[in-house]
Amino acid sequence: MTGTLYLVGVGPGDPELLTLKAVRLIAAADVVAYPAANGETNLAFEVAREHVPDTAQRLPVDIPMCVDPGPAQSAYDALAKDMRTELEKGRNLVYLCQGDPLFYGSAINLIDRIAPLPVAIVPGVTSLTASAAVIGRPLAARNDILKVLPAPLASGVLERELKSASAAAIIKVGRHFDRVRDLLYRLDLAGDAMIVEHATRAEQRITPLAAFASNERPYFSTILCAGGADR
Amino acid sequence: MTGTLYLVGVGPGDPELLTLKAVRLIAAADVVAYPAANGETNLAFEVAREHVPDTAQRLPVDIPMCVDPGPAQSAYDALAKDMRTELEKGRNLVYLCQGDPLFYGSAINLIDRIAPLPVAIVPGVTSLTASAAVIGRPLAARNDILKVLPAPLASGVLERELKSASAAAIIKVGRHFDRVRDLLYRLDLAGDAMIVEHATRAEQRITPLAAFASNERPYFSTILCAGGADR
Repeated sequence: MTGTLYLVGVGPGDPELLTLKAVRLIAAADVVAYPAANGETNLAFEVAREHVPDTAQRLPVDIPMCVDPGPAQSAYDALAKDMRTELEKGRNLVYLCQGDPLFYGSAINLIDRIAPLPVAIVPGVTSLTASAAVIGRPLAARNDILKVLPAPLASGVLERELKSASAAAIIKVGRHFDRVRDLLYRLDLAGDAMIVEHATRAEQRITPLAAFASNERPYFSTILCAGGADR
Repeated sequence: MTGTLYLVGVGPGDPELLTLKAVRLIAAADVVAYPAANGETNLAFEVAREHVPDTAQRLPVDIPMCVDPGPAQSAYDALAKDMRTELEKGRNLVYLCQGDPLFYGSAINLIDRIAPLPVAIVPGVTSLTASAAVIGRPLAARNDILKVLPAPLASGVLERELKSASAAAIIKVGRHFDRVRDLLYRLDLAGDAMIVEHATRAEQRITPLAAFASNERPYFSTILCAGGADR
């Protein structure tokens, strides 16, 4: 009997937004793996911490992040090898994923590497709907076109996509903030835009784009805005 | 002390995909409201049923669905009036919402009608990420453009949006299935497309678009497919 690797979404940050299924699987895991860059404990582990059994082996995973994808791919290869060894012993592994494992997550790098050993995915609440919930505004309704747009995309692409959206969530804002803000002003979409940082966490902050200080950069944030499609 | 109206996402259908927060609020509710068209108990209630206390008042909500929006708007007005009466008595209300309340949900019709009385929103797992989870395939990664496209949109709009997406979820397929299928074949996106019906429920069915019988129509389904952006 081989074990199963469970990629478990732990939601956006509030530990109460774990699902019952996530809690059950974490509590029964033989090994609990989680991202831990530079030796720092990751949000996904913090969110799940109270459910991780003392008896479970903890497996922090440090994947190097650099422009060259080679080192990260090698790190996933090595991780998958270790995980396969555990699975072949019949042990069940949980890999904790912030938000949802398949929504812009990195755990997808493990799926093909673990197969044909069993991998199961437990969906979680995304930062997308969590951000809408904390500002109390619909994300999309009826026949709206909703787009998720990573901020690193070229400005021309973002402009085209925003113009034909009913609503958009701009993710991975970070160092692209100034450029995105300028674009939203130019498209007359800034008035409605909200910046949600650390949705559902203690550090949560909600700021209208228009009120965001010009010398500040938002952190772990999503910008929710209307698109130009319905004008 | 007025009560609070909680719009609570109960997830896609598997009762284990309720969040801990949803369970806590449902178990403490004075009134549990839920959609119940034509007197039939709705999925949202079925998902949450085991947590609804015997002492809670149950409030089935039947909103008329027709082309003229008038009757539905009047029904929401009447519902909001009843809810305000309960809230003013200090009772807490939970309104159960399939998936996430703000992701193509109808509960958004209550937000403005209840304000300035307190409304809080509890995000849930959407059918979007649940569908990806049950097929075990990434929804979006890295700098992908992900689009949610309601099938009732005009074919020209769907075509334009699919061509410039990295990945798409086509929702509300129903009677638009034949047209959407033809479009996906024409854009050479059909080979990759998967139809997920009733994700995470007992009735769940996963079918490659290419294998779907020509005289059948999928029910409560999402089509996940690649877009043409990365070709």
